[in-house]
Amino acid sequence: MSQVKAFREINDHNDPASTRCAIRNGYFTGQTAGMAPGYTQGNLAILPAKQAMDFMRYCQRNPKPCPLVGVSDTGNPMLPTLGHDIDIRSDIPSYNIYRNGELSETVTDIKSLWQDDFVTFIIGCSFSFEQAMMDGGIPLRHISENLTVSMYITSLETIPAGDFKGGTVVSMRPMTTRNAIRAVEITSRFPHTHGSPVHFGDPSAIGIKDINKPDWGDAQSITDDEVPVFWACGVTPQNAIRMAKPEICITHTPGSMLITDLPSIQDARLDD
Amino acid sequence: MSQVKAFREINDHNDPASTRCAIRNGYFTGQTAGMAPGYTQGNLAILPAKQAMDFMRYCQRNPKPCPLVGVSDTGNPMLPTLGHDIDIRSDIPSYNIYRNGELSETVTDIKSLWQDDFVTFIIGCSFSFEQAMMDGGIPLRHISENLTVSMYITSLETIPAGDFKGGTVVSMRPMTTRNAIRAVEITSRFPHTHGSPVHFGDPSAIGIKDINKPDWGDAQSITDDEVPVFWACGVTPQNAIRMAKPEICITHTPGSMLITDLPSIQDARLDD
Repeated sequence: MSQVKAFREINDHNDPASTRCAIRNGYFTGQTAGMAPGYTQGNLAILPAKQAMDFMRYCQRNPKPCPLVGVSDTGNPMLPTLGHDIDIRSDIPSYNIYRNGELSETVTDIKSLWQDDFVTFIIGCSFSFEQAMMDGGIPLRHISENLTVSMYITSLETIPAGDFKGGTVVSMRPMTTRNAIRAVEITSRFPHTHGSPVHFGDPSAIGIKDINKPDWGDAQSITDDEVPVFWACGVTPQNAIRMAKPEICITHTPGSMLITDLPSIQDARLDD
Repeated sequence: MSQVKAFREINDHNDPASTRCAIRNGYFTGQTAGMAPGYTQGNLAILPAKQAMDFMRYCQRNPKPCPLVGVSDTGNPMLPTLGHDIDIRSDIPSYNIYRNGELSETVTDIKSLWQDDFVTFIIGCSFSFEQAMMDGGIPLRHISENLTVSMYITSLETIPAGDFKGGTVVSMRPMTTRNAIRAVEITSRFPHTHGSPVHFGDPSAIGIKDINKPDWGDAQSITDDEVPVFWACGVTPQNAIRMAKPEICITHTPGSMLITDLPSIQDARLDD
């Protein structure tokens, strides 16, 4: 039985606050897909103040791969703009600690690592727009086949800021041209979760040598009547952080996101 | 003859680069409305690095009144993400210098005031979405009557960041309900120029005591078949800066904006 299913069986409430409470108290340390449905989840990056301004500039300059959902005050672990009583030191299932760009440890709580100069960044993830595409009748192969979406480093360079730079990382979803058009319409309404695609069709046009060999995630089959459609991906800022090699950086472990109190449908507002 | 008209008569080219060149060389020191039509103009705020991170957080938390169009590197007067060879020390017609929250002087060039710790913020202004509304057939009274749009401080508190806080300042445009609906549709596509309205109808609901006495700009008549429609306004961050009383802050003088190389139509992208 999966941890999510086990969690649900012992937990009547699947709302954001009680889900975070269970995570905070160590009852759940797995992936958050499917938890607190209808609420926005976000990627985590914690950086010392010394690098924070450049990283925030990097996100401002590259809003498709790095859509900022929230930024904490310096040294304050609470995120009042994203939900009630969110303490980023304990409310994510598991954390990766990077030192000088290298993964040093994985932990389920960062209270003992907290620094007075830490700034927390929460960056939109693809969960909301994938749900909207499926609600719009577009089948997503990686979900129906229970795979991790294919991700590739591309030749689309991001606009640098300080030490943060590198190619845009994209996720790929194969679909018919009819669904691809519909997917552009739907995802363009989700600016906080990467928005509309950056490319479709010929992978080599954006520097992808072999569509069957993703840099992250699983390969997906593409049928004769389908085109690959590419979206900017939240691995882009993680990659930029690794290249910048800050003394310390803390991220979520893949798939274990922050669950916020913001309804996902708010992502679909056209202008906020 | 207005300075803009005089400028046009001596200047064959009305593109952003040659317009900025004329401004840089002191040939034009007035208001920029109508110059380089079709290109995005932006409000200016320059702050020392000490306050810059909090101000950037303030903008992230309040995207409707403070839509960030560009942020410079610390100490670098150039803005490559907004256009070719933009030097913010000379490329705006005139600047207000605030010291400890008080206006201390107005100048046409800030080269002698530049500091190594300055960060430049460019914030979207209403020019692009006003043009889009007029193109959509919505008459705008302040433009047809050659007035400055009415602006009011409201009880809609912004989300604070550090010393930056205060009520949202709104601009008001009277229109028929039919045009108000159309205006919501049109302006929601311009997230970088304040986006959709924050209110329409009863002014007292957002703390405005007398619609005929704006806090900035001119009063406008409202006919029996019209409602007042309120948009978040770029005076909000200026107000927040004055309240934060930074040692030094440099802004554009009202109406004398930065002309960028970004086509206005790009503002209408749904997700960037």
